[in-house]
Amino acid sequence: MKKILIIGIGAGDPNYLTVQAIEALNAADVFFVMDKGPAKDKLVALRKEICARFIRDPNYRIVEAESPERRRDGVEYKAAVDELNRDKQRVFEGLIESELAEGQCGAFLVWGDPSLYDSTIRILDTILAEGRLAFEFEVIPGISSVQALAAKHRVPLNFIGQPVSITTGRRLAEHGFPDDANSAVVMLDAQNAYTQLAGEDLDIYWGAYVGTPDEILVAGRLDDVKDEIVRVRAQAREANGWIMDTYLLRKRGVKD
Amino acid sequence: MKKILIIGIGAGDPNYLTVQAIEALNAADVFFVMDKGPAKDKLVALRKEICARFIRDPNYRIVEAESPERRRDGVEYKAAVDELNRDKQRVFEGLIESELAEGQCGAFLVWGDPSLYDSTIRILDTILAEGRLAFEFEVIPGISSVQALAAKHRVPLNFIGQPVSITTGRRLAEHGFPDDANSAVVMLDAQNAYTQLAGEDLDIYWGAYVGTPDEILVAGRLDDVKDEIVRVRAQAREANGWIMDTYLLRKRGVKD
Ligand SMILES: C[S@@+](CC[C@H](N)C(=O)[O-])C[C@H]1O[C@@H](n2cnc3c(N)ncnc32)[C@H](O)[C@@H]1O
Ligand SMILES: C[S@@+](CC[C@H](N)C(=O)[O-])C[C@H]1O[C@@H](n2cnc3c(N)ncnc32)[C@H](O)[C@@H]1O
Repeated sequence: MKKILIIGIGAGDPNYLTVQAIEALNAADVFFVMDKGPAKDKLVALRKEICARFIRDPNYRIVEAESPERRRDGVEYKAAVDELNRDKQRVFEGLIESELAEGQCGAFLVWGDPSLYDSTIRILDTILAEGRLAFEFEVIPGISSVQALAAKHRVPLNFIGQPVSITTGRRLAEHGFPDDANSAVVMLDAQNAYTQLAGEDLDIYWGAYVGTPDEILVAGRLDDVKDEIVRVRAQAREANGWIMDTYLLRKRGVKD
Repeated sequence: MKKILIIGIGAGDPNYLTVQAIEALNAADVFFVMDKGPAKDKLVALRKEICARFIRDPNYRIVEAESPERRRDGVEYKAAVDELNRDKQRVFEGLIESELAEGQCGAFLVWGDPSLYDSTIRILDTILAEGRLAFEFEVIPGISSVQALAAKHRVPLNFIGQPVSITTGRRLAEHGFPDDANSAVVMLDAQNAYTQLAGEDLDIYWGAYVGTPDEILVAGRLDDVKDEIVRVRAQAREANGWIMDTYLLRKRGVKD
């Protein structure tokens, strides 16, 4: 049987790796690396650094595969992601077939936690469901950017006994602050969706590149700091060529 | 200056500890341990095991403090937690004053991730706000039970581009499935609140003692497996004297 490990490597700081993830790294024969976009070089370098730092026996292989990219030419988001995932599936199948011998163990190093806004689990499930390839797979949790953000701001995600919603910038822009929650974490926001909630009496805890040397944190009342975040974000994006940022929004005045 | 580390130790498996958490353990002079309730012995033992296994210099102290308990005599939940946290605050203040010298570092080992349904950050903030004691504190993220659950079931928390709500059993029982989400993680459920959602065409991914040797996982269509979960849960609770369980509910038929 071939075996595949989906290893959460945490959201930036190599010290976010867990003991379990380090053991998993040491159990793998091959690492599949397939980053893309403007951050590609940094992300590939970080994965190689993690392998070099934590793997004891240097007899491992890294296979870099061309990563398909999501179409951004006006196609509807869900359709574009579906198409992207079908393309990725083909790449994964190729890797599993040609780069992994029976009895060997391959690993995907997933940014943050594999259960949050990541398609690796979904794609392996689809491959198995189609029945052409056989393998086992296992998921190793990692520190997500949500937790890294909360830790750096030293802020709880929830008010006492209250819910927290994890959502996307796209959805925040379309639906506003989630109805059922007084705390919301927003990921995948390419459009400064928080600016649309001005006047709603929210606090924001914003972070970019959290856990990396480029980390930037801004927190305060949304109305007071939103322009600063827009400015800082644009500058950082310009300087680095890419950005990844997340934020927690909390209703003010909730008795906690 | 006194320093306090709030260290997330992950939700059960000592291998969930991160490299950063291990470094933090090694930086602390004193560990404050204050578990309570029927699981107390197990939880204290696990914390001691973590210290013994990961701390290189055995010259550390563990201080066990009496943990106040939440009133369960009909007082409203939020009021009871508030009262509990005031009691805890007094215990924390006592520990920081009498067990920590200037320049020393004390640590609280928090189950799972410190940002999720845990009061340690909130209590330290309150102590600082009251201004009678001075110290610095830092938060180290940990693998939460949410991520441990998802990893063990090998299931993504969200559908593509869709939100996920993290909520409590109490709230699920009162408000039903969160309006704004098609995935919901439920924690702190002492009343099998999921049984009230029978007929709503949901999948459930349930786990108890996740990451520990007692781990139990059940997944399936809610209507098909809910009675099994009620039964298994009651048995396990009876056998162990306590239970901690979490589950993910997902609407069926969402195109993913
Ligand atoms: C495709 S999702 C992957 C999330 C990842 N699986 C996790 O657990 O964090 C990418 C989004 O995660 C967030 N993100 C990831 N790493 C981050 C970091 N170091 N700092 C801030 N946000 C980050 C951003 O919102 C980004 O748009
Ligand atoms: C007070 S909250 C603390 C949560 C913790 N900070 C975390 O990050 O998981 C306790 C609740 O977490 C969940 N929980 C914690 N550890 C768990 C485990 N190992 N397995 C299943 N549920 C767990 C249960 O829902 C329990 O009622």
